Amino acid sequence: MLIRIGYDLTFEFPSPTAMTLMLYVHPERAGDLVAPEKLIVEPEAPIQDFTDVFGNRAAKIVAPAGALRIRSESRVRDDGLLDAQNPSAQQQPVAELPAEVLQYLMASRYCEVDRLGIIAWDLFGKTDPGWARAKAICNWCQANLKFGYAFARPTKTAWETYVERTAVCRDFMHLAITFCRCLNIPARYATGYLGDIGVPPSPDPMDFSAFFEVYLDGRWWPMDARHNIPRLGRVLIARGRDATDVALTTSFGPSRLVKFAVVTEEVAS
Amino acid sequence: MLIRIGYDLTFEFPSPTAMTLMLYVHPERAGDLVAPEKLIVEPEAPIQDFTDVFGNRAAKIVAPAGALRIRSESRVRDDGLLDAQNPSAQQQPVAELPAEVLQYLMASRYCEVDRLGIIAWDLFGKTDPGWARAKAICNWCQANLKFGYAFARPTKTAWETYVERTAVCRDFMHLAITFCRCLNIPARYATGYLGDIGVPPSPDPMDFSAFFEVYLDGRWWPMDARHNIPRLGRVLIARGRDATDVALTTSFGPSRLVKFAVVTEEVAS
Amino acid sequence: MLIRIGYDLTFEFPSPTAMTLMLYVHPERAGDLVAPEKLIVEPEAPIQDFTDVFGNRAAKIVAPAGALRIRSESRVRDDGLLDAQNPSAQQQPVAELPAEVLQYLMASRYCEVDRLGIIAWDLFGKTDPGWARAKAICNWCQANLKFGYAFARPTKTAWETYVERTAVCRDFMHLAITFCRCLNIPARYATGYLGDIGVPPSPDPMDFSAFFEVYLDGRWWPMDARHNIPRLGRVLIARGRDATDVALTTSFGPSRLVKFAVVTEEVAS
Amino acid sequence: MLIRIGYDLTFEFPSPTAMTLMLYVHPERAGDLVAPEKLIVEPEAPIQDFTDVFGNRAAKIVAPAGALRIRSESRVRDDGLLDAQNPSAQQQPVAELPAEVLQYLMASRYCEVDRLGIIAWDLFGKTDPGWARAKAICNWCQANLKFGYAFARPTKTAWETYVERTAVCRDFMHLAITFCRCLNIPARYATGYLGDIGVPPSPDPMDFSAFFEVYLDGRWWPMDARHNIPRLGRVLIARGRDATDVALTTSFGPSRLVKFAVVTEEVAS
Repeated sequence: MLIRIGYDLTFEFPSPTAMTLMLYVHPERAGDLVAPEKLIVEPEAPIQDFTDVFGNRAAKIVAPAGALRIRSESRVRDDGLLDAQNPSAQQQPVAELPAEVLQYLMASRYCEVDRLGIIAWDLFGKTDPGWARAKAICNWCQANLKFGYAFARPTKTAWETYVERTAVCRDFMHLAITFCRCLNIPARYATGYLGDIGVPPSPDPMDFSAFFEVYLDGRWWPMDARHNIPRLGRVLIARGRDATDVALTTSFGPSRLVKFAVVTEEVAS
Repeated sequence: MLIRIGYDLTFEFPSPTAMTLMLYVHPERAGDLVAPEKLIVEPEAPIQDFTDVFGNRAAKIVAPAGALRIRSESRVRDDGLLDAQNPSAQQQPVAELPAEVLQYLMASRYCEVDRLGIIAWDLFGKTDPGWARAKAICNWCQANLKFGYAFARPTKTAWETYVERTAVCRDFMHLAITFCRCLNIPARYATGYLGDIGVPPSPDPMDFSAFFEVYLDGRWWPMDARHNIPRLGRVLIARGRDATDVALTTSFGPSRLVKFAVVTEEVAS
Repeated sequence: MLIRIGYDLTFEFPSPTAMTLMLYVHPERAGDLVAPEKLIVEPEAPIQDFTDVFGNRAAKIVAPAGALRIRSESRVRDDGLLDAQNPSAQQQPVAELPAEVLQYLMASRYCEVDRLGIIAWDLFGKTDPGWARAKAICNWCQANLKFGYAFARPTKTAWETYVERTAVCRDFMHLAITFCRCLNIPARYATGYLGDIGVPPSPDPMDFSAFFEVYLDGRWWPMDARHNIPRLGRVLIARGRDATDVALTTSFGPSRLVKFAVVTEEVAS
Repeated sequence: MLIRIGYDLTFEFPSPTAMTLMLYVHPERAGDLVAPEKLIVEPEAPIQDFTDVFGNRAAKIVAPAGALRIRSESRVRDDGLLDAQNPSAQQQPVAELPAEVLQYLMASRYCEVDRLGIIAWDLFGKTDPGWARAKAICNWCQANLKFGYAFARPTKTAWETYVERTAVCRDFMHLAITFCRCLNIPARYATGYLGDIGVPPSPDPMDFSAFFEVYLDGRWWPMDARHNIPRLGRVLIARGRDATDVALTTSFGPSRLVKFAVVTEEVAS
């Protein structure tokens, strides 16, 4: 199947400001693009691509003072399969984890592993390790957190989410990631496109998607602590320790988002 | 000059527990070792060395139930020079920073860049960018934070340190790092040995040392927001985003530290 | 002049739930009511009036399961004068404050006097004590906090407001109250009606009003850290340490607010 | 039986500073004093007694610059009975609680009722209301919080205690009080003397004692979430919403405690 993906963002800057953009399809999926992605900024400004420390493809620009529009549109081939599932996937002993994976057991800005350890063991210590435990965490988050955009704030952490019991997608993932790490399951944050494809339809069409991945049986598996069902049509953008690392845009100075539109839809091949 | 370095740690574990050890001299300084470092654990257990994502040399072991002693002793050659200083070092525009450096502008577990931005600009926005600004941050920390071991706690962050105004070394560094990042100066956390060498004598002999590094003029410079003077005899162990990444030991399960001794001293060549 | 005041609230309760209502005009203003206030609840339920420990007039009811409507409408006479102002009002030494006033120097749920002391002295320590200092605090809050309903959350404290720099009315008042207390100026939280009367018009017609009071020269003076101008047509409902004590309604069990309307307007005598 | 009680405190002040002292035996126990209490300050300074809003007897002084010693010694008669226990004591419906008691259901500085409600219901919602529920809360605190003076800090709240799982006496009480209030059991903080009397001996001789009280069956009952056993020889000093209200001394300016000694012991009649 073929998916049309794209976005159209406009920011306002009081003065020239450096930005990083983490909006490209991930190198893992680049081979599925029908044509190379083209990031368009208006007014024109030099775009410098780079690969970040997590292997994501990103760009740097200096936004001029005034309005800046950033947009792109591509088509990507997809196998049309649901997220892989493996209820018998095992947790590996920490000492056997690859060095690159170990960092996803550590605390990060929005994932206070050091604060939530006892609570994680109280809640999930009796579940079976591995897939069942990660799934129990997702179930708990889905059942116990109340979703609402009014609950969003940029500084909200897993710990705060646990106590306030209110969340947007990113908060669901941060809390699930933190619980996984507390229980020695490596977990990382991911962003991507997720189309209004299949049944049930996407609950948040016209937005980027946040999900997370757990490391079991020597590979990473996608999970979603909010919707908590396998999905199809997921197109990965970036992965990192938490939302800090994969913000779609990061401005190194004041800025204001004035327009935000995302497209993901199946198109005829 | 020649410096004798080493440590002798004992932990108690209720059950077999995976650990990572970030106790080796950093690869950058490995060439200065008189003989290869030898990490001894008692009772014997397999030690698996690895290099982490930041380039630090580390080890993994599975501690058996009961007591575990970890020790080492080495001699390292040192040029005997004070920390490099360069008051005219310039801050580079964010858009010109190498990709590997950008991560040290981001928020991390103990460094809430997202929370302290306005305060950082209020306090330091009128200082000259670059070296002078980083130094102003160190001066402020030294003048405004009260040192005391009673103020230590494992979950303490830069934001909490700013408000409580009490700190141990790691808190001094976390707050200084956070302020630097808020002002677009890349900053990273570092651990090492620091001998009771030169004048003035080390204020905390018999401990590892925490410091931080700022990226100016295309290279990293060591700074210390607590003692705030150039030192000699610094032997780097590890660097990371904050103390999370470079904990001397990380236990993936319950543990208790029962002995802790560190040696750093100049010895006759 | 004559002001029409009133409200019309509807809640939903899953099961019978005790509530306290702090919706009556304050006893200080009861003499100005054209007719005694009548609180109407539908379906009918016994209403038990009481006076709380701060001297506010309040009511207790047991809400039945289902919807509960609470409404009232009254007319109150007002002298039509602006809030009293006295730029020469002096701060009294703490040791000379009445016992009843001392509590308004202490920390409370949303006012962390213990956390913000150093910051308060840094920001306002050089202003003249008394009225000028309280006014400097209001000016700072008005200039440095960004208003927006999206920034509201029930657990938000003065400390969080100081760092996040975003606020609704109650957050403006909590931060101002906390700074005042840090500087030994007794300060308390107040709720009331504030009509769309005079110039400039009320910025938030159709809502209750939050303000605060400071104790100078042996009496309390109203201040408003958000609008920061003297107003007319203020009708006091309740006063307390902070918003905890004077919540318009407190439910001792789950509840959902489904309708909220407030009226305050000048009417012909 | 007869108990000798007293204290000897020394503070240092950089400049003259107002203080409130909450060190007198509570008016409820004043009739048991063998002779009226005499608070001695050196150097001499006027002492102004007052009764606070909670009914505690307190004093105000202006400490001169330099050292200030505050001491007292008294003998108090005691019935020698253990704390009253009543496992069948019932919880009263909120709507039937006296107005004066309602304030002890509300959030206060160190007791974030608004943050811990869901957790309280999760932990204790299935216990029997009333005495059994309050006791279950004490049992949980005793079993799950690790005691240690190194864990003390002046800003620590119930919420932080719940997550960190470390506590000094006051933190045990704050968390227990908060859980009680979340479950609609009025609870208040108390300070007093507690002698090394009876079996088992007092675990912290030479200190004041923190405990709390719950309101059941129309009266207040003492409880202790740390030691969690009935005691004898308790001599009440003060009660309030939390430790904010009953600090033994509150300085309205910088101060340093340099000596702290408390005596409580049974003496021959």
